[in-house]
Amino acid sequence: MFEVRERDGLGRIGVLETPHGRVTTPALLPVVNPNRPVIPARDLGTRFHAEMLITNAYILGKPGPREAVLREGLHGFLDFPGPVMTDSGAFQSHVYGDVDTTNADVVGFQVRIGSDLGTMLDVFSEPEHRHARAAADVEETLRRAREADRLKGSMGLVGAVQGGLHEDLREACARGVSSLGIAVAAIGGVVPLFESYRFRDLVRVIVASKKGLDPSKPVHLFGAGHPLVFPLAALLGCDLFDSASYAKYARDGRMLFPDGTRRAADVRESGCLCPVCLEHSIDEIRSDERLLAEHNLHVCFAAIREVRGAIAGGSLWELVERRARDHPALLDALRELRRHNDFLEESEPVSRPGAMRYVGPETLHRPILHRLRRRLIERYAPPAAKGLVVLPEGDRPYSSRYGSLIARILREADVHVVAKSIWGPVPLELDHVWPFSQSIVPEILDLETLEAAEVFFRAWAAGAGYSFGILWENDETLSELRTRAPGGRNVDWNLLRARATADLQFGRGAADALLGGSVRFVLSKKTGKIRNVFVDGDHVLSLRAEDGLFTLKAGGARRLLKNFPPPRSRVVVDPETLEFYREGKNVFAKFVREVDPDVRVGDEVLIVSPDDELYAVGRVAMNRQEMLAFRRGVAVHVREGLPPPSSALRR
Amino acid sequence: MFEVRERDGLGRIGVLETPHGRVTTPALLPVVNPNRPVIPARDLGTRFHAEMLITNAYILGKPGPREAVLREGLHGFLDFPGPVMTDSGAFQSHVYGDVDTTNADVVGFQVRIGSDLGTMLDVFSEPEHRHARAAADVEETLRRAREADRLKGSMGLVGAVQGGLHEDLREACARGVSSLGIAVAAIGGVVPLFESYRFRDLVRVIVASKKGLDPSKPVHLFGAGHPLVFPLAALLGCDLFDSASYAKYARDGRMLFPDGTRRAADVRESGCLCPVCLEHSIDEIRSDERLLAEHNLHVCFAAIREVRGAIAGGSLWELVERRARDHPALLDALRELRRHNDFLEESEPVSRPGAMRYVGPETLHRPILHRLRRRLIERYAPPAAKGLVVLPEGDRPYSSRYGSLIARILREADVHVVAKSIWGPVPLELDHVWPFSQSIVPEILDLETLEAAEVFFRAWAAGAGYSFGILWENDETLSELRTRAPGGRNVDWNLLRARATADLQFGRGAADALLGGSVRFVLSKKTGKIRNVFVDGDHVLSLRAEDGLFTLKAGGARRLLKNFPPPRSRVVVDPETLEFYREGKNVFAKFVREVDPDVRVGDEVLIVSPDDELYAVGRVAMNRQEMLAFRRGVAVHVREGLPPPSSALRR
Repeated sequence: MFEVRERDGLGRIGVLETPHGRVTTPALLPVVNPNRPVIPARDLGTRFHAEMLITNAYILGKPGPREAVLREGLHGFLDFPGPVMTDSGAFQSHVYGDVDTTNADVVGFQVRIGSDLGTMLDVFSEPEHRHARAAADVEETLRRAREADRLKGSMGLVGAVQGGLHEDLREACARGVSSLGIAVAAIGGVVPLFESYRFRDLVRVIVASKKGLDPSKPVHLFGAGHPLVFPLAALLGCDLFDSASYAKYARDGRMLFPDGTRRAADVRESGCLCPVCLEHSIDEIRSDERLLAEHNLHVCFAAIREVRGAIAGGSLWELVERRARDHPALLDALRELRRHNDFLEESEPVSRPGAMRYVGPETLHRPILHRLRRRLIERYAPPAAKGLVVLPEGDRPYSSRYGSLIARILREADVHVVAKSIWGPVPLELDHVWPFSQSIVPEILDLETLEAAEVFFRAWAAGAGYSFGILWENDETLSELRTRAPGGRNVDWNLLRARATADLQFGRGAADALLGGSVRFVLSKKTGKIRNVFVDGDHVLSLRAEDGLFTLKAGGARRLLKNFPPPRSRVVVDPETLEFYREGKNVFAKFVREVDPDVRVGDEVLIVSPDDELYAVGRVAMNRQEMLAFRRGVAVHVREGLPPPSSALRR
Repeated sequence: MFEVRERDGLGRIGVLETPHGRVTTPALLPVVNPNRPVIPARDLGTRFHAEMLITNAYILGKPGPREAVLREGLHGFLDFPGPVMTDSGAFQSHVYGDVDTTNADVVGFQVRIGSDLGTMLDVFSEPEHRHARAAADVEETLRRAREADRLKGSMGLVGAVQGGLHEDLREACARGVSSLGIAVAAIGGVVPLFESYRFRDLVRVIVASKKGLDPSKPVHLFGAGHPLVFPLAALLGCDLFDSASYAKYARDGRMLFPDGTRRAADVRESGCLCPVCLEHSIDEIRSDERLLAEHNLHVCFAAIREVRGAIAGGSLWELVERRARDHPALLDALRELRRHNDFLEESEPVSRPGAMRYVGPETLHRPILHRLRRRLIERYAPPAAKGLVVLPEGDRPYSSRYGSLIARILREADVHVVAKSIWGPVPLELDHVWPFSQSIVPEILDLETLEAAEVFFRAWAAGAGYSFGILWENDETLSELRTRAPGGRNVDWNLLRARATADLQFGRGAADALLGGSVRFVLSKKTGKIRNVFVDGDHVLSLRAEDGLFTLKAGGARRLLKNFPPPRSRVVVDPETLEFYREGKNVFAKFVREVDPDVRVGDEVLIVSPDDELYAVGRVAMNRQEMLAFRRGVAVHVREGLPPPSSALRR
């Protein structure tokens, strides 16, 4: 059983239960080579806090160790009390061309020795395999997966995803494997990509696989043992990693670091704080395979902890962006991500805590910004006016920076005012929304960033319907505006803000639905900003200071229900659980029946019965695919249970 | 006494001798607050391997501790046997507006208590101080520096560089302080820049100061205690750092990491491998000031070791480039560096070991590439031809990639062939030269990088004298070339290579000087590349495989001497030492009298007497400023001592 506790991108902190204990993911499983254990299995647990190990059932099944393992069981043989996963020999078939076992044999053997997670014998597709060959191998892999499913008994089965570099095959294989009774899905056939730094292809393979995989299953990335790839792979939703590299690199006299590998002979002084590096001179370390392996393992575990820390802190994207500078091939991988933004944005929350930080031109293409720009085009309705005044790039809330100027422009000319920011166009009435309100941007911007700001702006302005646009320069601009767009108005700034925010957040039409009537704003005494919105006396919305978006109140929820047809803004739940939500209890994933496809983590939603009666309002904690897949975990944090509608408000 | 052992950029690994022992630089000096030592001074030495501490003489001189310190001496009072530096109270004058001591008093006190390095009381210029005020303060600082110089006795004096953000004042102050008998130069008045992340201003201040400072003196950067700035400051030539931040941040419940500061309360899991993080839960650490301080100190020391490791490995620039992604203000600082390229390139070697790695568009502006592009324009003489064929961007040696194509183009049309690379234009006969021959570049390039490649190319092509340029596309291009530039030739590729390399390396005219006569090439049997060059039977040059540049042989040295007027390619040495070089002994800096200003680290030079007689040929290990300033260290590694010229070769 697997439960996700926290999310960042497709990355997640989860707990995987096995017969021999729980494992917190993302987790690194050190490979124990039964023939040559450089660090004994027990030490891996006690000294390195490894929660789960991985070893190779194909090798254990050979005549040498076979009898002992069958007699003592896997855990006794290894002398490790915690969970152990076993691999099947597919990698050996990649290395040696063939293996002398069958899927049925190796699965049966894993069941007999008591593996916590046993792997089917998949067919290893090489990156250079053409589509037809890879397709045949996927077909065979799926046949074996079904066979393994029948043979697995009570063992947790690891189902493999193959398909080479063919995205359609990866997705199809993932979908096929997900339909079986697997405990873990493993993405295989990727070691050749690590070996030649083909991280861009790695992104394609992982994304394609994730599209087909059941999001409620943990994902193992076979052979990913270098700290260089942990952040990226975790961001794309890989939960388990196995490392033989700590030992293999040690044998070659190489040291792992978070930013790459170096020959120990070339390392003069290490900035590493691990016990090996603190307690031994570099000369001692260089010539000692065991010390090298221990250093390498410390670095790998620290990198995994750093990834978990970043997920918990909501900074995994930034970690990936920063680490992309450790190797040009990682930068290529980062740049590849934007090709998959429509998929990646489904796992992005509506906003994030803290400021948006510019790391490089790639930051602008983060999926959360991609979605924001799309929603500005699709959801935000720009106020009617003749022309558009464009404020130059800047990274602070514009209305406070240009406050009185903007009021003057609007009073004297029939125009709207929008700032051109690197995150996308910022209509002035939305400059309180995250990340427009909170970002850290360098003073000097590179050409690609400036060009992107221009492209983003034009993509929006083209559909905004203004007959002209003019860049604000100075008071002469105002004279020109008076001539070109005579007119002007005194704007109800709060109403404009509230309407634009409502549409951006809930979709076009939300402003009419939520704010139709006599609107009263309660402002913060300290900041003068909107706090609460009442319509015809009803408390409809509260504005959150942290991201400038609305919290839905009872009055607002009823208005959305009335004006938005299903499934908009709704989570439909099992009728037997409905009364719990009226009492304010959270919605668990296993009781979710249907979800508005446009809903994202952090969105405000209506909890409704299958016949669309409103029971509560809450904030979404999983995306739609997760709500429908998971059997564990909170899907919606209910903020307010709602009583049955009084007759006055009933439709 | 200070000796530099290794260099990278302006960064250096050095050894500073003090009465209480040697200190390896870059070094971090933990601040011991005598009133509140969160970690006892002795522990800083034994457990953290701090080689030198810093404490505050102004505070020690107050009535409370004064008598005890005078009685026990500084080292006894602190219970620390190693070197101790003391600060003077200038920072307190910044914080409190004034101090109740005088320069003479505080210097005298430091002498009496036995400080290894005692600091004058400088006048702290705030960043916002105008030029006139800062100039007056610099004048007063210099007056006090002279006073301190008279009072210092046998104590090592720390002379301070002030001048606020005014580059001319910083440079003048640095020059003034350098003319005195100081042991260490300290750049002061920068704490306000750290506090507000004004790293771009920090770059300006350090560079301006370094321009005025004696390069043989170690440089202390006052108040730089955050690992975020160590790589950048070290790259710009700062050798000593003091850290109170480990303790101050601990008091505020904040944890330092190499990539920034986080509130301990927000840290859920740390990727840190320090003993504190490995042995304690994050809950324990959070609530324990001592543990926080120890963690912070471990991280700071590790960051300094990482910097030293990078200098030793020649990768400090890359470390700085990667770390620039940890905060947008650091990225600004990185982009600021190119403004100072004419100064920075003086400390860059002619080539570097290993491949040039692309980290971001800033890499293209690294001073070593800036100089290479300038030399391509100033030194390389493009072969006469009618037109120019431009090969598209690519990161591998072009002649091997396009080999037979190029030969065909040259045979059939009167053109020259140049590739447009992101490092700059690559004339085909120079594609074996580092970094054209060795670089790691992403597949996908950003707009700024592509634009820069274009700009670099045009800057060169504008002066190259071809009547047209055409981008290579396909065989149709060749037909067009035949029409526009009829002619063509069979090129002696080796001679073309050798001539172009000689000019690029030694300056225009070097090809004629070195290769005038009957040239014979000895090629590598394995690679077919030039190994040795003989002219009229004389061994003149060898080509190094690692960077594609020449090693000067006896015959070549004599030819340069004859054809190049002094001071070109020369290091003039003390006549009393001349016979040593004939025996192949290295040239030490203290015997250097004059140096060709165009000579850089790694350059091949002639060792000559003041009357221009040739004694040896060698490879430069310091830049000119260093050779003239240092009293210690090797200035030129002599490769070959040369006997007195035979009469046949004498001019």
